[in-house]
Formats: sequence, C-alpha cells, structure tokens
Amino acid sequence: MSTPRASRPTRLKLVIAYDGGRFQGWQSQSGGNTVQDHIEGAFEKICGHPITLHGAGRTDAGVHALGQCAHVEVDRNPPLAPDRWLSALNAHLPREIRVMKCNRAPQTFHARFTAKGKIYTYRIWNSTVHPPLENGRSWHLPGPLNMSILRREAKKLIGSHDFASFAANRGKPVEDTVRTIREIKIRKQGPLITLTFEGNGFLYKMVRLITGTLIRCAQERADGDWIPDLLAGKKKTSFAAPAEGLYLTRVLY
Amino acid sequence: MSTPRASRPTRLKLVIAYDGGRFQGWQSQSGGNTVQDHIEGAFEKICGHPITLHGAGRTDAGVHALGQCAHVEVDRNPPLAPDRWLSALNAHLPREIRVMKCNRAPQTFHARFTAKGKIYTYRIWNSTVHPPLENGRSWHLPGPLNMSILRREAKKLIGSHDFASFAANRGKPVEDTVRTIREIKIRKQGPLITLTFEGNGFLYKMVRLITGTLIRCAQERADGDWIPDLLAGKKKTSFAAPAEGLYLTRVLY
Repeated sequence: MSTPRASRPTRLKLVIAYDGGRFQGWQSQSGGNTVQDHIEGAFEKICGHPITLHGAGRTDAGVHALGQCAHVEVDRNPPLAPDRWLSALNAHLPREIRVMKCNRAPQTFHARFTAKGKIYTYRIWNSTVHPPLENGRSWHLPGPLNMSILRREAKKLIGSHDFASFAANRGKPVEDTVRTIREIKIRKQGPLITLTFEGNGFLYKMVRLITGTLIRCAQERADGDWIPDLLAGKKKTSFAAPAEGLYLTRVLY
Repeated sequence: MSTPRASRPTRLKLVIAYDGGRFQGWQSQSGGNTVQDHIEGAFEKICGHPITLHGAGRTDAGVHALGQCAHVEVDRNPPLAPDRWLSALNAHLPREIRVMKCNRAPQTFHARFTAKGKIYTYRIWNSTVHPPLENGRSWHLPGPLNMSILRREAKKLIGSHDFASFAANRGKPVEDTVRTIREIKIRKQGPLITLTFEGNGFLYKMVRLITGTLIRCAQERADGDWIPDLLAGKKKTSFAAPAEGLYLTRVLY
C-alpha cells in the first residue's frame, strides 16, 4: 500500500466584505483587531499553523469593503473544497467580516500584483438631518452642494495624472505617483450622493482626498484652477473626506 | 406696562427615526434606554421640566423606525420655532435617534388616535452569506424560498380579518383584534426581499408573526390551509420573524 502523498498547496482567491467601523483597518498590526489579523487567525484555527494572507491593498480604519480581495496558499490534509473553506472561515470570523466568495486560483494569481484596477464608492448624505441608519456609513453634509461644479471638477481628474498632491505621506516615499482614473460616476438619488471611482490603482488616502477636495469645490469654496494646480503639483490638498463614507467595492482582475 | 402673558401651549408633531438595535424598544420603562426615555429626556433638558411624549405606537427592541410619529405639548417661554426644536432636540439625543421633522400641529392632532394607518417594511437577505453591513438590518435566510408561494399566501391576508392568531399576548387581552391590511407589496432585488405592509393598525408582534408564517410557507414547510385556518382562529402561529429585519416606515394621518 502506498503512503498518502503530501497534497499540493492550493491557492485560494477570497472576496471579502467587512464593516470597517469595527476594525483597525485591513493591515495586520501588533495591536491586532485588523481584518487581516482576524482572517489569518481563522485560517490558523482551521489549518493548525500560521498562514499569510495577501490582500489586494490596505484600507484604513472605518473604511468598508464590499469586495476586498485576497489570496492565500493552503496545504491542508485532507484538502478542503472552496465552499467548505468559505463556511469554515465564516464560522471562525466575527460577523462584521464575511468571506463572500472563495475559489481556487492558479499559482500565477496574486491578489495585489495581478489586479488590473479597483472600484471605490463614496457615499454622502446631503440633508439637514443624518438618518440613524446612515451613521458610520456616509458623510453627512447638511449644506448646499453645487452638483454641476462637482461633475465639472470631477471630469478634470479623469485620465493618467501624477496624483502626488492627492496622497497622504505614509512615512516612506512612493516612487511612482502616476495613476489612471478611468471613470468617476456621480449619482444623486434624493439626499444620497454617490461617487464611484474606477482606476488602475489609488495612492494612500487618494479617494478620500479627491472626494474632500471635490466637495470643497461643490461648496463653492475653491476656484476652477485648484484641481488643475493640484494635478500639476503646484499645490497640496489636505481636505480628506472621512473614512466612514468610503467603500472598496471591487477589485478588477 | 402689561406683564408678559403666559404663552399658549404648542402642540408639536415629530417624525422620528432610530436604529432599534441600540435601545430597549420605544416604550418608556424603569430601566431607561428606550427611545421614548431619550426623547423625553431631551425635552426636559430644553424645557426645564418633564413632558410626556405620545407615540403613534410601540416598537420592540431591535425594531427600527424610519418614520415613527409622536406628539408633545410644549409651553416654553420664550417659544421656539419648530426648526429650532428640531435642532435643539437632536443636539440632546444620541445619534442613533434623530428627529427627522418637527411641525406645529392642531390641538386636535393625536399621534396615536388620529393615525389612519401604518406602513411597515420587513427586509430579508436570501443568500448563503449575510453581508456584514446587513448585520442587525435584515433577516438572513440562506435556504431556498418559493416566491410564488410567498406571494400567493400573502394575498390571503389582505382585507379585514380577525388577526388574533397573529398576535402575541402582552398580558392584558385586546378587545378588538380585527384589523385591515390594505396592501402587502413583495419585492425581490437580487438577494434582498422586502415585504411592505400597509394597514389601519397592527396588533402586538403582528407583522413579525405574519412574516415568519409567510416565510414558513415559502420554505414549503406548511400547506395552503394554514393561513386560512389561522385567520379563522382554528390555530395559532409562533413563527415570529426576528425584530432586526423590521422597520416602521411611516405613520399615515
């Protein structure tokens, strides 16, 4: 009788959703209670040994995800089918984090390096009173917003630009700050304004800085040269929209 | 010089929204932390003396409100305009409770006795995984639901019936258990199923018992005689849908 062969490691692609208000962001840290820490902890319980989860990118504390992506290499004996992984992981995770999908991926798949782009959505609630069920889920802006200025200024950001002025410094310098924004969709449904950004990648805090800056324009507190000047690197902006209105909606592969 | 006349009391109509998961229901109780307790506390801080808030009806712990109604008689010197009341009340309330509208009402207006009906909405999430942002906001039902049975059985409830079998006993007997359901709208948008009930009034736990019972039918765990038998008073149902999926959407006047 042959001894059981060691199973080949399996690469899994996970689609993950979380309520960002409950965690200290995505990225693992010594204090724990990050999304990555929780998911790695769930894998460790199932596998019996630590594993490393590779996310498509970080999100800050407060930022939500509907479709964060990550991959992981597992080498469990006996192997588990992807749908068994899904239910086992969710059984070990707090209910504010859910693995929405789990599939086998080829060895060439890398959550971060294979990604072709990302979609972020930013929600704004534009009326006098912020409804209780919108707490922690949208930016409450009670004052008037000029929607045509918002749309006009957003258009200036489309395309490939050096977005260095729209990036927060995370300590180490980023080499290449050129990114391409393919589309910014702006929708208004009653008091709810949503901005959907699709791009090949985003710098640290870029979506929040773009949103905060656009809102400043829509409040008629900036002139039409501001965004071109920011894109030309002549100025910096520090108007970051709060984390709680931001959603990582999808990672594109 | 004339002494200032005592101002006439003003009746205010409030439209109130709250996140039901944070409170012990609507109705004032000795332990506090009910929605009524918080709003009466806010009025007391503004007026300097206790007042009584009259709600259109109670909601249980966990049940949300988008448009609960209440009235109150205030006698503040100097008087406040309704929009000043709105901002003063919200400044004294936890952000999980918001006064959405505040208007003067005639002395004949009574939040409970003048109401012509109510609209409740029940949200169900019908897919394998419950998204984190749906926690506490919908009933997660991962199994199959037969939508045509759901719609067919719901139709049997329309009209005036004795709904005693769909009422939880709150200690004291209710004299008249006949209510009229004018409409039950059922919508399915992807995994989200919403049931919207409009009626002239609802007994204690009636919407949750109707929803739980209808879902039992849609799961094909009941036959087509069950609802007629319940309406005829031949049976009782104890299948109450959980509080967290229920929303008091509107009170009709």
